[in-house]
Amino acid sequence: MATTSDFTQLWGDLAPVGRSASSGGYFRQPWTTAESELRSWFAEECAARGLLVETDGIGNQVAWWEPATASGQRGVLTGSHLDSVLDGGAYDGPLGVASALAAVDALRARGFEPGRPIGIGVFVEEEGSRFGRACLGSRLVTGATTWDEARELRDRDGVFLADAVADAGLDPSAGLLSLDRVGTFVELHVEQGRDLVDRDAAVGLASGIWPHGRWRFAFAGEANHAGTTRMEDRRDPMLTYAMTALAANKQARLADQRATFGRLAVEPNGTNAVPSLVTAWLDARASSDEALATLVEAVERQAHDRAGRDGTSLEVTAESVSGSVAFDPDLATRLAGLAGWPVIPTQAGHDAGILSDAGIPTAMVFVRNPTGVSHSPDEHAEPADCLAGVEALADVLAELARPGAPA
Amino acid sequence: MATTSDFTQLWGDLAPVGRSASSGGYFRQPWTTAESELRSWFAEECAARGLLVETDGIGNQVAWWEPATASGQRGVLTGSHLDSVLDGGAYDGPLGVASALAAVDALRARGFEPGRPIGIGVFVEEEGSRFGRACLGSRLVTGATTWDEARELRDRDGVFLADAVADAGLDPSAGLLSLDRVGTFVELHVEQGRDLVDRDAAVGLASGIWPHGRWRFAFAGEANHAGTTRMEDRRDPMLTYAMTALAANKQARLADQRATFGRLAVEPNGTNAVPSLVTAWLDARASSDEALATLVEAVERQAHDRAGRDGTSLEVTAESVSGSVAFDPDLATRLAGLAGWPVIPTQAGHDAGILSDAGIPTAMVFVRNPTGVSHSPDEHAEPADCLAGVEALADVLAELARPGAPA
Repeated sequence: MATTSDFTQLWGDLAPVGRSASSGGYFRQPWTTAESELRSWFAEECAARGLLVETDGIGNQVAWWEPATASGQRGVLTGSHLDSVLDGGAYDGPLGVASALAAVDALRARGFEPGRPIGIGVFVEEEGSRFGRACLGSRLVTGATTWDEARELRDRDGVFLADAVADAGLDPSAGLLSLDRVGTFVELHVEQGRDLVDRDAAVGLASGIWPHGRWRFAFAGEANHAGTTRMEDRRDPMLTYAMTALAANKQARLADQRATFGRLAVEPNGTNAVPSLVTAWLDARASSDEALATLVEAVERQAHDRAGRDGTSLEVTAESVSGSVAFDPDLATRLAGLAGWPVIPTQAGHDAGILSDAGIPTAMVFVRNPTGVSHSPDEHAEPADCLAGVEALADVLAELARPGAPA
Repeated sequence: MATTSDFTQLWGDLAPVGRSASSGGYFRQPWTTAESELRSWFAEECAARGLLVETDGIGNQVAWWEPATASGQRGVLTGSHLDSVLDGGAYDGPLGVASALAAVDALRARGFEPGRPIGIGVFVEEEGSRFGRACLGSRLVTGATTWDEARELRDRDGVFLADAVADAGLDPSAGLLSLDRVGTFVELHVEQGRDLVDRDAAVGLASGIWPHGRWRFAFAGEANHAGTTRMEDRRDPMLTYAMTALAANKQARLADQRATFGRLAVEPNGTNAVPSLVTAWLDARASSDEALATLVEAVERQAHDRAGRDGTSLEVTAESVSGSVAFDPDLATRLAGLAGWPVIPTQAGHDAGILSDAGIPTAMVFVRNPTGVSHSPDEHAEPADCLAGVEALADVLAELARPGAPA
């Protein structure tokens, strides 16, 4: 089995990369120095295991452990992502990559010989924290997003994605990772909720992902002097936004859905000026595609009503919407049977959802999160639970890649 | 009298400096390239009139037109500021400086010989748009703010004021402008409201300035995943802020006061993260010091109540508070008598308020603003009204600086 020291060392090497000294959180945005360092770390760890890494034209990576005898069968890919949200936690993403490496160590320690290839992969820009498009790396390799569309995305500083990729020393014309060899995908991830705490289980499997998306609300009014302009003469988009943020919260709370305004841009953003423009991003999620559409429509309607009263205007743009994902139920049942792991839904998007949508049988392994906190410096998982996750992932890979395993 | 071409040329030379090609608004922040250019423009215009400019250690400027025979009397200073809010208008500030230059031209064209010195001055960082302290230049020269306090202020990028000043090629150790020679101060300014429109007057005088200030509200909560964190498990400071912005608006509206949240900073400001911190700046103004204190207390109390319900916390810091200003009433009456100009209050802070607080008899001349819009690219004054302002300022200076005029 994986030793504590194996995993502890892998994890310890990652700990300082992109970490904020003040908050203790992580800033591992794609195509930055921190991410380059993470890519090098991954290549070195693979090399130390005798695995050769391919890096594609945008920074996705994969390393294959080939069976002693070529089987001609498609392989089992595992892995996750290394990027973080702004000021994020250590576990969301990297736990799946470190656990994949440690699971290979565990399988070798067991004397396991794969009957088909086992791959370890890393997808870029899973969080969408820089260019606003979540799971961008996996969307590009599955074709869910085209390069011609992606290259025109801009970050907050106006940098085009194509330029950011080139500045990171990558060459998109070199092509993207091929998924032709991938028969099954398994992503291990820290849980982002407390379902496993409630079930008193260190490890679980995913049934599916709630539909979710990002909508940009642009509230436009008229800039004016904050001192001299009478309240009744204003067209202040901040008021329209404020009411909309409260309305979105209330709608989601009533129906056990999720609605969050966590990102804002205000123009001109001066203390003594009524704003001319407030741009706010709504992150919304619900248990079904219909419920999500109804939620967003309700928020949008209330925002328009208030805009009418404030003399402001509103434009809503869907930046990315992901429909509900149901992971292959037969696969989940087969894997849950290995150790009686619970099968639970998640409200968070993952590369696993994109690969599942592309028709690849996919499963997810969750590791218990004692507080449920994620996307925060306080995100945490206990070392014993991380080791249980590594063992579970090794068990899953052994089941899927053993000689003679069903496809 | 001032010719249309004199003023039009002065104004035309200023028009392109610091202007945004996209919005048409101005970004003339202190100690930037745009402001250096404005300082050079002012020095050249003074030189063209045979006036020598002194620039002090932080960039305040003054040029004196001396009487033919030294009178030993204190002079009359006029002028305003050249900096703008972010994406501001062309008139707020520069109109007072350009009109001062044009008024000197008009007096000379009339053959006027001053009996005491007439100065034209420019104060830096009047808007507080970079370091958050309005009227910083005039506060420093009157001693209302000390250099030791000011040097530690930081802009949004964390740059210390002392470094920004040094980077602009200025040397604070060279000392600040002396007001010893200033017997009276007169500031011409575009009106930032529609009082003169309602009174059908191109020009007016100020009676006083409403008390006003800036309070920083720091709403703290807990960062978390926007998808997986149940609404009832959140401590989301955005909600506390949103309710506070609506409450402030309502309080001010009910009592014909002013309350604005026009500037925000959100951390981590990611679409898929509940924020950990929302910092919002309240600009509040009222007709009396007591009314202002009551307004801010009411907003703060409602914010604290809501924070209790949201599980967030709140810290409020007064960044700058200016008490009410009553300009010298005898001076206003004397000047109003020259042409029957109306005498009106203003809700906007001005360097004139700081000099008045320092015991210098002070007056303000307002020029009609057809829409009342200010702190916006749409700020405007008609050319004919600007020329009427120049003539009025020339009349005021002639009255105050004529040989034998009362002190």
